[in-house]
Amino acid sequence: MKRADLLHLLAEVERGALAPEAAAARLATLPFEDLGHTRVDHHRSLRSGLPEVVFAAGKTPGQVLDIVAALARDGVEVLATRASPEHFAAVQSRYPGAVYRELGRCITLSIAAAKEPLRGHIAILCAGTSDLPVAEEAAITAETFHCRVTRLYDVGVAGLPRLLAVRERLLEADALVVCAGMEGALPSVVGGLVGVPVLAVPTSVGYGASFAGAAALLGMLNSCSPNVSVVNIDNGFGAAYSAVLIARAAHRG
Amino acid sequence: MKRADLLHLLAEVERGALAPEAAAARLATLPFEDLGHTRVDHHRSLRSGLPEVVFAAGKTPGQVLDIVAALARDGVEVLATRASPEHFAAVQSRYPGAVYRELGRCITLSIAAAKEPLRGHIAILCAGTSDLPVAEEAAITAETFHCRVTRLYDVGVAGLPRLLAVRERLLEADALVVCAGMEGALPSVVGGLVGVPVLAVPTSVGYGASFAGAAALLGMLNSCSPNVSVVNIDNGFGAAYSAVLIARAAHRG
Amino acid sequence: MKRADLLHLLAEVERGALAPEAAAARLATLPFEDLGHTRVDHHRSLRSGLPEVVFAAGKTPGQVLDIVAALARDGVEVLATRASPEHFAAVQSRYPGAVYRELGRCITLSIAAAKEPLRGHIAILCAGTSDLPVAEEAAITAETFHCRVTRLYDVGVAGLPRLLAVRERLLEADALVVCAGMEGALPSVVGGLVGVPVLAVPTSVGYGASFAGAAALLGMLNSCSPNVSVVNIDNGFGAAYSAVLIARAAHRG
Amino acid sequence: MKRADLLHLLAEVERGALAPEAAAARLATLPFEDLGHTRVDHHRSLRSGLPEVVFAAGKTPGQVLDIVAALARDGVEVLATRASPEHFAAVQSRYPGAVYRELGRCITLSIAAAKEPLRGHIAILCAGTSDLPVAEEAAITAETFHCRVTRLYDVGVAGLPRLLAVRERLLEADALVVCAGMEGALPSVVGGLVGVPVLAVPTSVGYGASFAGAAALLGMLNSCSPNVSVVNIDNGFGAAYSAVLIARAAHRG
Amino acid sequence: MKRADLLHLLAEVERGALAPEAAAARLATLPFEDLGHTRVDHHRSLRSGLPEVVFAAGKTPGQVLDIVAALARDGVEVLATRASPEHFAAVQSRYPGAVYRELGRCITLSIAAAKEPLRGHIAILCAGTSDLPVAEEAAITAETFHCRVTRLYDVGVAGLPRLLAVRERLLEADALVVCAGMEGALPSVVGGLVGVPVLAVPTSVGYGASFAGAAALLGMLNSCSPNVSVVNIDNGFGAAYSAVLIARAAHRG
Amino acid sequence: MKRADLLHLLAEVERGALAPEAAAARLATLPFEDLGHTRVDHHRSLRSGLPEVVFAAGKTPGQVLDIVAALARDGVEVLATRASPEHFAAVQSRYPGAVYRELGRCITLSIAAAKEPLRGHIAILCAGTSDLPVAEEAAITAETFHCRVTRLYDVGVAGLPRLLAVRERLLEADALVVCAGMEGALPSVVGGLVGVPVLAVPTSVGYGASFAGAAALLGMLNSCSPNVSVVNIDNGFGAAYSAVLIARAAHRG
Amino acid sequence: MKRADLLHLLAEVERGALAPEAAAARLATLPFEDLGHTRVDHHRSLRSGLPEVVFAAGKTPGQVLDIVAALARDGVEVLATRASPEHFAAVQSRYPGAVYRELGRCITLSIAAAKEPLRGHIAILCAGTSDLPVAEEAAITAETFHCRVTRLYDVGVAGLPRLLAVRERLLEADALVVCAGMEGALPSVVGGLVGVPVLAVPTSVGYGASFAGAAALLGMLNSCSPNVSVVNIDNGFGAAYSAVLIARAAHRG
Amino acid sequence: MKRADLLHLLAEVERGALAPEAAAARLATLPFEDLGHTRVDHHRSLRSGLPEVVFAAGKTPGQVLDIVAALARDGVEVLATRASPEHFAAVQSRYPGAVYRELGRCITLSIAAAKEPLRGHIAILCAGTSDLPVAEEAAITAETFHCRVTRLYDVGVAGLPRLLAVRERLLEADALVVCAGMEGALPSVVGGLVGVPVLAVPTSVGYGASFAGAAALLGMLNSCSPNVSVVNIDNGFGAAYSAVLIARAAHRG
Repeated sequence: MKRADLLHLLAEVERGALAPEAAAARLATLPFEDLGHTRVDHHRSLRSGLPEVVFAAGKTPGQVLDIVAALARDGVEVLATRASPEHFAAVQSRYPGAVYRELGRCITLSIAAAKEPLRGHIAILCAGTSDLPVAEEAAITAETFHCRVTRLYDVGVAGLPRLLAVRERLLEADALVVCAGMEGALPSVVGGLVGVPVLAVPTSVGYGASFAGAAALLGMLNSCSPNVSVVNIDNGFGAAYSAVLIARAAHRG
Repeated sequence: MKRADLLHLLAEVERGALAPEAAAARLATLPFEDLGHTRVDHHRSLRSGLPEVVFAAGKTPGQVLDIVAALARDGVEVLATRASPEHFAAVQSRYPGAVYRELGRCITLSIAAAKEPLRGHIAILCAGTSDLPVAEEAAITAETFHCRVTRLYDVGVAGLPRLLAVRERLLEADALVVCAGMEGALPSVVGGLVGVPVLAVPTSVGYGASFAGAAALLGMLNSCSPNVSVVNIDNGFGAAYSAVLIARAAHRG
Repeated sequence: MKRADLLHLLAEVERGALAPEAAAARLATLPFEDLGHTRVDHHRSLRSGLPEVVFAAGKTPGQVLDIVAALARDGVEVLATRASPEHFAAVQSRYPGAVYRELGRCITLSIAAAKEPLRGHIAILCAGTSDLPVAEEAAITAETFHCRVTRLYDVGVAGLPRLLAVRERLLEADALVVCAGMEGALPSVVGGLVGVPVLAVPTSVGYGASFAGAAALLGMLNSCSPNVSVVNIDNGFGAAYSAVLIARAAHRG
Repeated sequence: MKRADLLHLLAEVERGALAPEAAAARLATLPFEDLGHTRVDHHRSLRSGLPEVVFAAGKTPGQVLDIVAALARDGVEVLATRASPEHFAAVQSRYPGAVYRELGRCITLSIAAAKEPLRGHIAILCAGTSDLPVAEEAAITAETFHCRVTRLYDVGVAGLPRLLAVRERLLEADALVVCAGMEGALPSVVGGLVGVPVLAVPTSVGYGASFAGAAALLGMLNSCSPNVSVVNIDNGFGAAYSAVLIARAAHRG
Repeated sequence: MKRADLLHLLAEVERGALAPEAAAARLATLPFEDLGHTRVDHHRSLRSGLPEVVFAAGKTPGQVLDIVAALARDGVEVLATRASPEHFAAVQSRYPGAVYRELGRCITLSIAAAKEPLRGHIAILCAGTSDLPVAEEAAITAETFHCRVTRLYDVGVAGLPRLLAVRERLLEADALVVCAGMEGALPSVVGGLVGVPVLAVPTSVGYGASFAGAAALLGMLNSCSPNVSVVNIDNGFGAAYSAVLIARAAHRG
Repeated sequence: MKRADLLHLLAEVERGALAPEAAAARLATLPFEDLGHTRVDHHRSLRSGLPEVVFAAGKTPGQVLDIVAALARDGVEVLATRASPEHFAAVQSRYPGAVYRELGRCITLSIAAAKEPLRGHIAILCAGTSDLPVAEEAAITAETFHCRVTRLYDVGVAGLPRLLAVRERLLEADALVVCAGMEGALPSVVGGLVGVPVLAVPTSVGYGASFAGAAALLGMLNSCSPNVSVVNIDNGFGAAYSAVLIARAAHRG
Repeated sequence: MKRADLLHLLAEVERGALAPEAAAARLATLPFEDLGHTRVDHHRSLRSGLPEVVFAAGKTPGQVLDIVAALARDGVEVLATRASPEHFAAVQSRYPGAVYRELGRCITLSIAAAKEPLRGHIAILCAGTSDLPVAEEAAITAETFHCRVTRLYDVGVAGLPRLLAVRERLLEADALVVCAGMEGALPSVVGGLVGVPVLAVPTSVGYGASFAGAAALLGMLNSCSPNVSVVNIDNGFGAAYSAVLIARAAHRG
Repeated sequence: MKRADLLHLLAEVERGALAPEAAAARLATLPFEDLGHTRVDHHRSLRSGLPEVVFAAGKTPGQVLDIVAALARDGVEVLATRASPEHFAAVQSRYPGAVYRELGRCITLSIAAAKEPLRGHIAILCAGTSDLPVAEEAAITAETFHCRVTRLYDVGVAGLPRLLAVRERLLEADALVVCAGMEGALPSVVGGLVGVPVLAVPTSVGYGASFAGAAALLGMLNSCSPNVSVVNIDNGFGAAYSAVLIARAAHRG
């Protein structure tokens, strides 16, 4: 609830249009919806600029459908990440227009009223072929939030010419999402080549001493490129979310 | 070296103004300066938009002075982080105008020619009194790069009213730097209140199972607020650096 | 064996009603029952105020049935946690009145003679939908031990209004059980809002750097709210057990 | 701010005694005091039942004195934990009645107006001689908050007779604080002997594979006694804090 | 090869009965048998007093059969640990007298010529029902090597009377094997009650912060009972092996 | 691109045979091939002396086939490691001459034009039977790159005579690859017996406190034999790759 | 308290020589002495065969002196490990006959009445020169408890001939204590050469990935020699204690 | 002892020139020298091609001098690493020609008789100024063993042009030693540019989540450049040792 709303509410009390008890209830009751298992945050896009996103893993298909339905009623873009085919089947049964992006494990549901022009530009890089699911989760997230996306995949540092060949294209983006497993060195190298924020995503790609992505995570946290910040292992969504906020702000003129 | 420079160089070869051997040497020699112990990157502000910053810890006072001198010759703002009084004494001996910010452990040296107006606005929060050195490192970094800074200190989540009291001020910033030790919960709570990127800085404040900041680091990496990204433990500089890039891009109009 | 019993036994020896050898045997033999695979502790509710509870995971259905039967003979409330459908099938075959609570993975068997009025009041919170199984294990435990339970689910800190909306209800409880995965920040925030003990339960909900609940565990151990203490990851039972002891003591008048 | 206060404030707005803008300011401004480096929470004892406690480690003597002074103005019992002799010297210079408890590293300042009768009873155990500083921090905390304290020190499990000899005294307490380093087994054994909550404190006593208390911490988290909950390594204060809340509630009649 | 054999060999060379080249070959060739995938150590019982034991996990049924056959040719007691039913089927097809002990996951094959009287006495304890497979691996190992075994199961420290009831029986053994998961406290308590070596076996029983037995392992390594030494997690075989060596030496008269 | 090629290209520009724009494109475009999911590095054998190798794990059979086909077009030896039978089926469908080495999980495809004589000699050791898959991955790698291989398997340090028996054969190799799980002691012992580099490969063989190979890895990193260097857990390929480079250089005369 | 004492006590009650209340007190009071800071266990040598040993680290000189005095009154051999020169000064001030062994950091005090002949034989090995303090702690412990000690130092596995040269001497001992830092491989190699128990002591000798002895600890826990058991890092005392129990039992005839 | 020596010895026995007992003694006694605290391995350069090197850390100045003297008697090049000024003072007092290299913490003592021509060429790279001590330890080691050394310092990946500028020089070396702290990405990038083995040295340079070099270590172990192998954190000596073996073998013609 924003300050303007608060002043408006208090003004209503002042002019007798609202009883103090009712105002107290309003102040205590904020705009979310309790589905029993989940409290859906309708207020979120007011507060954060972007609508709530469903993290499907660990939820039943029925729970995911309930939340999707609650969001769809608000007329916002719906995105469910880490979704299985079972989650999609449940959503599609009620929303035939829903789309499942298998590689990135995402369900999207585009509400006609929510169409917006593209705003901002994000480049998404990954070090190897096995990082594609994480990179695609990021790409779909950014596209859902109406950003232009450039995909630059399999450009890991052990074959530097592959990266140098796309160097010019890096310079066009407002923010970069860089996904890498194993030693996780790509964000450091990329960070040194550009002047925009780099959102680094360690992936769980690797074996042995990669400890399921922990090695890449530690590498990225210790990056000597100062424009690198890091999200959780495999969290393509989170990196794209921050990148979208950055890119949109750069083009809000 | 940018594409335009490359084309220009090749054009000079074409018209015979530059021999192939000389061009090859130019292509191999990029604009850094070798001090013996250190290669100073004069090219950096062209590539990254911001000049090189000196990380003083682990360098001798003499080495820091050498690097500061090399940067000062370029006429850029000079910032040395993690600087001890000994580092400062060395710098001050040649540059009497240098300033030492003890709490944030930074040396700054402002070059007259580099004065710029403020561009962008960053809010810097910390959870407790002991986080101040990290928060100040962030604040000095942002100020050195000509950002407006709002300091909101000691607003940890165990006393929520302290945070809610400054809620309105959070909404004015282009990006937030949020420093916290112990459980590191502040970025998650703050992240849910704003619609801009949050750069989370775990601090080494705590004892026992804080494992020198690892607990806070893990907490922040697992944040359920999607607009949170994380830097290394106590890396106030890095968080501010990304925040500055974000804030400047939002006001480049 | 309590002091009174010891004095009684020694008095019997003094008046010749009990031979020293027999007394020695009694002093060495305490009231448990050896089932071969398991020693059932019939003495426990005398010593601890609450009867023994069966941890079914890692036991065969036959072993669980044996232990349930031994407890049922004592006429106490029977609770088996971490029970699979196979465990339940074995118990139900002999005790048709047994009930299986699937979400919380518990078997309960209510013995008529053991009915008691409710005593004490516990609030059980969880941060997200995926924490429900742990929260329900806690809730069923508390209900089995005759406590009133208030369930407040999906109130994680990234959407603070959801938590603030139930703030008043927190104040009515004698103790709180707070379950959270990922960054595990909820107990710190809740702990700052109430004046009763908070039993924090880290859950294994999360991925990547959550390290199967370790991140939440570390966060809770470092809580800056001093009324927070912590149990093992996913240990809803243990948190509720301590909470029941607290709540009952507060209402023993 | 409690519901009654909110209703009162809104009633003032309704009857024109308070302008909406002023009410908005009041709602945003909660009762803490900003010392610059620290926001002192005067509201805390209303919210939590116990006044704020100063964690002195990592604060300068001057900062500790400022906070002590702010609390003393409220007339509450003042306790500063992890205090050094330097911290004490600063406090004593203004408050000659302050007392320094060296073994437990605590400063206490008793305000005449705050005298209360003892309420509740806590037993504090430790496994070995080296655990005494942590146990004493707990004992001083409980005494500051007007609880009766029974100290049972050096009763570790490798010499079981020492523990069994004090078994009867365990049964008199409303809650137990049990401190142990090395393998941290004492809370499990004690937990099986009593029917009240056990607050377990791992200590950093040990060497090698104790990993500065981590071994004891893990042991306690895995306790098979269900009435055990755990606080951070060496956090005698936190354990006593929860124990005080439990003991006071049991005697609030 | 013992010194006596070496002298004998050199004497043969001296008197011309053995050519230097042949002696060199003998000195280089020691008594093991190369099966291609495995080198079977026939020399082992000379060197170690006990025959080689087969660790079946990670070997194919055919490989296990090959090794069992090689050992059986020596006429020693054959023991294969961590054996699956598939391993047993392969062994039984050639050796119908082989026995599979399912709970302890062991194959034993008793060769008539190897019968020996019992020598020494080991007590094997475990803390809970779920530790039985590890305890049984230890018991079968000791029995295979002709030790008397006393099994004392489900005597964990949270129900101390269960352990105290068997205290007298602990005093009869030459060495103890003590298996426990979760907090792993049993060896410390048992160690304080006896005057013989305690071989502690952490088990992987537990969940969450047990980290698959690491918590129990750390607890045992930090035991404050000085007669405790530790083997790998779930290594019942190894603990029994050392215990057998101890018990046999105590009765070698 | 080597210096000679660069000079040649610039010379073409100088004599007007190549336009500057075309040269710029050539300089930016290096010799890899973009398959969409993967960028195949045809340049690699020029740069590294050995052709690219396919890491099949985490790639689909179709992706592996695409990469194999791209490499086969270059006429180089093709090797795919960590390949499943499914990967092989896909490759074999187009290349009937491909061979699957099941124990070492490798696909090899020998191109007639690439036949070379053997150059260099590598000995590959492993400590136990369960280490064979890793040792074989190393052996196949070395053979694919035309090195002579001596296999010395099951020579772990607990049966030292097995190792001493093959000591002479160790001395013939140009480099050693030594694979061991559990405590990983073999490279230290072997390293002390030879005067050539030892490439140590920790394997994930073991249980409990082996932590999936981490114990062996740490042991090898701490080797007191100075000629030992280490690769990732189970990385037989990587160890053999370095060993091949060493052995070939020693015989390049 | 042994069974015989219990029967005696009960017989006294039976014949009226002891009142039940007095007997209850006796049963509750076991033979330790409470020094305030420490409970000295006079009962220990009855229960364990060896007297209590003082772990001096973390105790004040005065506390150590108090405990030494309490033990000396019993006429047992006194040993204080991890003792500093300050501890020794305090002890020597009252007991001029006390001896300080600097390398092994031990204080010993030999009481005339306690002289015993040597019983049993222990060999103590260490891998390198830096392991000497730990090895000496073990040696002094064994000598204090009247065992014959053979010291075999600097016989690490990287120079195998050094170990093989002392092989014969290993065969004479009843038990071995083997100390090693870095990769900790010595116990595995030694374990394979002998037929008696090996007590392995990881030392904190090393740097980097030795993680203060953790690498050696893990190596030893994963030993493939089955006669190896392990104690805490640097715990020479504990290893020698178990070795003494083993050696004495083997010679109790 | 090599096979030729063994045959020679046995031949002497055969012709009666050596008694069997004397031969047995010779076979058991290998060529090391026991200084009491240390067994100096005079045999080492026969076995390994390079003489023994003294690791001074953890040894007293007197011990280091003893070992240096023993080696100097053999007339080999003497190198002591991790040496303090105190170590040097002790060595210099007897060997005035000894040299102390402060930055690399090495003592060298060149014996006239041991002069050899340079053989082989190693390039030593480091990522930043703070890595110099480790890089210099490597450089001095290589020079002591008569290799040509090219130093390329401060060429970390965040400023890629610095590395690309020295690319040509990388191609001249027989092996590379690459030192880096923080994220440790340099070996991966360098490994992709050359066709010789890369010995990667993680350094303890960094803070926070570098965990004293563990992050760099993990990064290097997960390198996607297959020619990278890794040594312990800060182990410049070990990396150079392997590199020397490689470079010498490549030039042994």
